[in-house]
Amino acid sequence: MNNKIKVGIVGANGYAGAEVLRLIAEHPLAELKVVTSRAQLGKKVASVFPALPCDLEFSDAQDPALKTCDVVFTALPQTAGAALVGELIDAGVRVIDLSADYRFDDVSVYERTYNVTHPRPDLNKLAVYGLCEVNRKKIKSAKLVANPGCYVTSVLLPMLALSSAVKVTNIIADSKSGVSGAGRKADEAYSFCTLDENFKAYGLFTHRHAPEMSEKLGQKLLFTPHLLPIKRGILSTIYFDVNDSSAAIDALQRAYADEPFVSYTDALPEIGFVAHTNRCMFGARFDGNRGIVISVIDNLLKGAAGQAVQNMNIMFDLPETSGLPLYAPI
Amino acid sequence: MNNKIKVGIVGANGYAGAEVLRLIAEHPLAELKVVTSRAQLGKKVASVFPALPCDLEFSDAQDPALKTCDVVFTALPQTAGAALVGELIDAGVRVIDLSADYRFDDVSVYERTYNVTHPRPDLNKLAVYGLCEVNRKKIKSAKLVANPGCYVTSVLLPMLALSSAVKVTNIIADSKSGVSGAGRKADEAYSFCTLDENFKAYGLFTHRHAPEMSEKLGQKLLFTPHLLPIKRGILSTIYFDVNDSSAAIDALQRAYADEPFVSYTDALPEIGFVAHTNRCMFGARFDGNRGIVISVIDNLLKGAAGQAVQNMNIMFDLPETSGLPLYAPI
Amino acid sequence: MNNKIKVGIVGANGYAGAEVLRLIAEHPLAELKVVTSRAQLGKKVASVFPALPCDLEFSDAQDPALKTCDVVFTALPQTAGAALVGELIDAGVRVIDLSADYRFDDVSVYERTYNVTHPRPDLNKLAVYGLCEVNRKKIKSAKLVANPGCYVTSVLLPMLALSSAVKVTNIIADSKSGVSGAGRKADEAYSFCTLDENFKAYGLFTHRHAPEMSEKLGQKLLFTPHLLPIKRGILSTIYFDVNDSSAAIDALQRAYADEPFVSYTDALPEIGFVAHTNRCMFGARFDGNRGIVISVIDNLLKGAAGQAVQNMNIMFDLPETSGLPLYAPI
Amino acid sequence: MNNKIKVGIVGANGYAGAEVLRLIAEHPLAELKVVTSRAQLGKKVASVFPALPCDLEFSDAQDPALKTCDVVFTALPQTAGAALVGELIDAGVRVIDLSADYRFDDVSVYERTYNVTHPRPDLNKLAVYGLCEVNRKKIKSAKLVANPGCYVTSVLLPMLALSSAVKVTNIIADSKSGVSGAGRKADEAYSFCTLDENFKAYGLFTHRHAPEMSEKLGQKLLFTPHLLPIKRGILSTIYFDVNDSSAAIDALQRAYADEPFVSYTDALPEIGFVAHTNRCMFGARFDGNRGIVISVIDNLLKGAAGQAVQNMNIMFDLPETSGLPLYAPI
Repeated sequence: MNNKIKVGIVGANGYAGAEVLRLIAEHPLAELKVVTSRAQLGKKVASVFPALPCDLEFSDAQDPALKTCDVVFTALPQTAGAALVGELIDAGVRVIDLSADYRFDDVSVYERTYNVTHPRPDLNKLAVYGLCEVNRKKIKSAKLVANPGCYVTSVLLPMLALSSAVKVTNIIADSKSGVSGAGRKADEAYSFCTLDENFKAYGLFTHRHAPEMSEKLGQKLLFTPHLLPIKRGILSTIYFDVNDSSAAIDALQRAYADEPFVSYTDALPEIGFVAHTNRCMFGARFDGNRGIVISVIDNLLKGAAGQAVQNMNIMFDLPETSGLPLYAPI
Repeated sequence: MNNKIKVGIVGANGYAGAEVLRLIAEHPLAELKVVTSRAQLGKKVASVFPALPCDLEFSDAQDPALKTCDVVFTALPQTAGAALVGELIDAGVRVIDLSADYRFDDVSVYERTYNVTHPRPDLNKLAVYGLCEVNRKKIKSAKLVANPGCYVTSVLLPMLALSSAVKVTNIIADSKSGVSGAGRKADEAYSFCTLDENFKAYGLFTHRHAPEMSEKLGQKLLFTPHLLPIKRGILSTIYFDVNDSSAAIDALQRAYADEPFVSYTDALPEIGFVAHTNRCMFGARFDGNRGIVISVIDNLLKGAAGQAVQNMNIMFDLPETSGLPLYAPI
Repeated sequence: MNNKIKVGIVGANGYAGAEVLRLIAEHPLAELKVVTSRAQLGKKVASVFPALPCDLEFSDAQDPALKTCDVVFTALPQTAGAALVGELIDAGVRVIDLSADYRFDDVSVYERTYNVTHPRPDLNKLAVYGLCEVNRKKIKSAKLVANPGCYVTSVLLPMLALSSAVKVTNIIADSKSGVSGAGRKADEAYSFCTLDENFKAYGLFTHRHAPEMSEKLGQKLLFTPHLLPIKRGILSTIYFDVNDSSAAIDALQRAYADEPFVSYTDALPEIGFVAHTNRCMFGARFDGNRGIVISVIDNLLKGAAGQAVQNMNIMFDLPETSGLPLYAPI
Repeated sequence: MNNKIKVGIVGANGYAGAEVLRLIAEHPLAELKVVTSRAQLGKKVASVFPALPCDLEFSDAQDPALKTCDVVFTALPQTAGAALVGELIDAGVRVIDLSADYRFDDVSVYERTYNVTHPRPDLNKLAVYGLCEVNRKKIKSAKLVANPGCYVTSVLLPMLALSSAVKVTNIIADSKSGVSGAGRKADEAYSFCTLDENFKAYGLFTHRHAPEMSEKLGQKLLFTPHLLPIKRGILSTIYFDVNDSSAAIDALQRAYADEPFVSYTDALPEIGFVAHTNRCMFGARFDGNRGIVISVIDNLLKGAAGQAVQNMNIMFDLPETSGLPLYAPI
C-alpha cells in the first residue's frame, strides 16, 4: 500500500484531467493525493462529479501537497501551467503535462502555432514527447513528459511505422473525433441540439495538431478534423503514396507486434473496437502505390489521459498495462 | 398571392420561434412579414440560421411593421411580451402567444406557478386556450390565443377525452421529452457530452406544467418530466383508474376520429411515429379498472409551433392542415 | 384537383421508396395512385408505417393501375426492376428509376461495377441521368430518368462546377453518410448497439459509387465512404488540386447562384443545415493550388427521393420546388 | 497466479455473456479458462469481437474443461442451460446463472411467467437469489446463484430498503432501459434507424420482470418498461405511498450506507452517473405520503454481468469490488 505512486492532478475539472482522476482512482499501484481545480475549489470531487465517488476535495494549484507527490499530471490550458511545472520539477516532482506547451522540439513552431510566447524554453529542452511506444526509453527517465495531442496520436502511430520502412509522400489525414475532444464547455456550439444528428468539418488548413504531426513525421501533411456526434473516439482516414506497398504492409504489421495497446488488424478497425480502452488499432488497404490507413483510438484515453497514465507506468517501472483498460465494452 | 395572411414573429431566435418561422416560410397561404430577435438584431435570418434560407432581416420588437400584420406569434419568456401583446391587440392585430402568460383561467395559479405578477390580467380574460381540437370554435374568433405547453398537450388530448366519458382518478403522468424542449441554451447541463447516452428525471412534484394540466383537467395529478437524449418528441405514460374501462376505450377511440392530427392507435405509439409532424397519437391498455395511456407528440410542432400555426389556420379560416406536416420521415 | 400528376411507387417498403411516398402524399400537385411492395402486399400503408397515415394498400408490381399513372418511381434492387421499367415505358408511363441500372453511359462499366449483365441496354440509351441542376433540359423530355447515387450527388454538384471552369486533379472524396443510406435492414451490423457511439470506414477502393462519379466527372478519383451514427445526411470532404484557385472559388460561387436547392456558402456547411431538406450546400477553402470542398446533402432527399421528386417536377413542368422542403428543422 | 479463480462462461456471444468475459479478462484475481458459444464455435474470441483481445477460442457447452473450473457463468436463454447447470453442480462446479430459470422461489410463478415447464425444480431449491447486498450471506456458500433481472435490480434495491422500514403501497415502476437490455439481435425493430431519435413503451401489464419484482417485494406492483435510444443504463421512476415519509427517507439513506456499489444521493441520479460501473444510485422526493424514487444502474453491469461477477467475488471470498468498475467515464 505505502509503496503506491503518489499522484497529483492539476486541472481535474476538465475532461482530460477528470479522466486521469478516474484512471488513478482505480489504478492498483497509484494513489491519488491531490486534485486541483480553480472552478471547483473546496468542493468534494464526488459532489461535483457524482460519477466519480472520490473522497478528496479540490484544492488549488498552489497546494503544497503537490510537491510531496511522485508525479503530477498538469491538464491546464496552453501556457497556464508553465510556472507550476517549473516549480514542481525544481522540487523533484516528475510532471506529465497534457497541454501542448512542451510537445514541440522547435519552440518557434509552437509559438507560431499557438500564437504565444513559450513560457519556459529551458524546460522545453528537458521534455520528452510522450508517445509511449516510440519513445519508451527516454520516457523512463524523463523529468517532464509532454503528452501528445489526440489526433496526433492516431496519425503518428501508424505513419511513423510506415515512414521508418518506406518512402511516404502526399499524406492527407482526414480525422473524425467525438465531442469530448473539445473539452468541457458551456457553449451553444457544443449543445446537444446543435450536435446531435449533425456532423461537420472544422479548422481546414489551420488546425494546431497539423504542425505537431508534421514535426514528428518530418514532413508536411494535410490534416482536416471533423466533429462526430459521439462522446469518445477518433478515426483517422489517412491517404498517402508509398514507393513499395508490400514493404509498407509488412511494416504496419510488424511495428507494434509486441505491444499490448497498439495493433494492426486485417479487418478495418472501428471506433467501437477501442472506445473506453487505451488501445490504438489500425488497418490498411493499398491500390498500387496509393495507400489508405484507418486508425482508431479513444481520444480521452490513448489520446490523452490513458497515454498519460501509460507514461506514468513507464516512468515508475510499473507494469505498462496497470490500471489501463484493454477490453472495449459493448 | 396578395391574399396571403401577413405574419410577424417576435422572438424568432428561440427554438419555438424559429420553428414557427420555418413553418410560415413554407406555408402556402401565409407570408412572413417581420421577424424579430433582440439577440440577432439587424442580421439576415439566413446568416444566423444557415438551415433557414429566408431573406428577411431580424428587426426588434418595436418594429412598426408588426402592426401591419394579420397575426403575430409572440415567443418570448414569461411576462416579457406583455406590453407588446397589448399594443398589438389594441392595433387590431391578432396574437398567438407561445409563453405561459395567458394559459391559465385563474390568474392566481399562474402567478403562484411562475412566481410573477401577471402583467395584464385584463388581457387574460380575452385569451382563448389554444388546444385546437378542444377549443376550435372559440379559437376561430379569438383575438388572443394562449398556445398550450408541450407536455400539457400530450397529456390533455387523451385525458380530456377520457374525463368527458368516465370518472378518472389517481392520474400520474410520467413524461419524457427531447432536449429541444429546454430551448436554445449555452449551458453545460445541455451540452452534448452531458446528455448523450444519458437520461434523467427533473422537476419532481414542482414542474410548471402540472398546474396547467390540473386546471384544464379539473383535478390534481402527479406529473414527472424526464429528459431524453433525442432532439424532438414527447412520450407521456399516463397511469390512472377509471370506473368503466370499456367506456374508457370507447371514448379514446371515438373522441378524435374525425381529426386530421389526433388519432387513437391499437398499437402503442412511439415518438418516431410523430416526430417532425403536427400529430398526436395515443394508445391505451387496461387491466381491470387500472389504465395506461401512451401519448406522443413532437414537442416543437403539436407541442408548440405546429399547434400555433394550426391555431392561425383556424383563426383565419384556412384549411386546418395547411402548411403542417402529417407524415413523419424515417 | 383532377389535374394532379398521377403517381405510382414500386418498392415503397424500402427507405427511398417510403420517402418518395411521404413526399408525394404531401405534394400539392401530385396524387398517389399505387404503391407496391412484395413484402407488405395487401396491407394498408398506415398499418405498416404508422408514421405514414396513407389510406392506400400495398399492391404488387404487376398491378395494372401502374400503367394508368403519369409517372412511376421504381425503387428496386439492381436489375430487379428491368422488365417492369420496359413495360411501363412501352405503355407510355414515364419512369424515374432509383436503382443504379440506368445511371451509366457505358453499360460495360455498370456491368463490371455491379457484377451483373445489364437487363436492358436498349433502355439505357433512353435514360437521362437525373442530376437536376446539370441535366434539367434533357430531364424535361425524358421517358426514363436514372436518379443519381447519394454520395455521387454530394460530390458531383460542386466538382462538376469546378471542372467546367478549371483543371482539377488528384481528387479524393472522403464521404460520411448517415445510416439510412444502407436501406431498411434486419442485420446486426446495422443494429443500434453496433452503430451508436461508433464510426467506421468501408468499401475502401471498391465502392460502387466511385465509377459513377468517375464517369460523370470524366476522371478517376479516390472515394472512401464512412458510416455516421445519425439517421440522415452526407458530408463529403473533397481534396483536389487546381491550376487556378481564384477561378475555382469563382466557379463554385457562381455555378448555382440561381438555383433554389444548391448553394455555395462562405461558412463551411454542416449536415444539420440540410437534413430533412432537398438542398445541397457546399463551401471551400484553398491553400495555394490545393483545395478542399465540403459538400452536404440529405441522403434520402437530394440524395434519393427528393431529387427523384424534383425530377418529376421538371418532367411535368411543375414549379421545381413543389412539395420539396427547403428549410431544415432544428 | 495459480491461485486465481478458474472461470468458464457458457453463452459468451450474447451481450451479458460477452460482458462477463470482458470483466473476467481484466479481473486481477480470476482467470478465464473456457468460453463457449454455439454460434461462434471454433473461432478466436478476438476475431469475433475485435474489441475483446482475448486469446481463447469459443468451444461448445459440452467442453469438459468447464468441469475443471471453479465457477461457470451460464448466460443462455430460458431453460436451455438446465441440463448443463445440473451436470456442473454434480461435478462440484459452482454456477452463476444469468437466465431467469432459478430466480423464483415459487416454481409455478416462473412457469406461468415464462410459459415453460421448469427444467429442474430440484435445483431451484438450491438456488440463491443473487441480489448481492441483500443476500450476501447465503450467496457466500451457494452452489447455484440466480442472477437477478436488470429492471428488477434497479427497483428492488431501493424498494426493499423502503419496505423493510415503512408500509409501502400502490407501487408503480416506470422504467427506461438502454437497448443492450434486449440482447444481440439481427432484427429491424432494433436497427439504428428504428431506434435512434425514438422512444417507446412496451410490455404494458405483461413484462416478465413484474412477477420477479412482486415475489421479492411481497406485493403486486405495476411495471412499465420503455426503450431508450442509448446503449446502456436503466432509470426507474418509482411511485408509491408510504405511511411515514421521514422514516422512509431515513431508510433509504441508511440502508446501504456501508456498501461500495449502492448509494443514496440527495441530488437525483442520472444514468450517466453509473453507466459503465457496477453501481446503483437512487434518490427520492416526497410530497406528504406520496413518494418518488429515482434509481439508476448500468443494465449490463449491476443489472447483469457486473452483479454476476460481484456474486463470484462473494462466493470465493475475494474483495467484493475486485474487477468491478466504480467510477463512470464521461
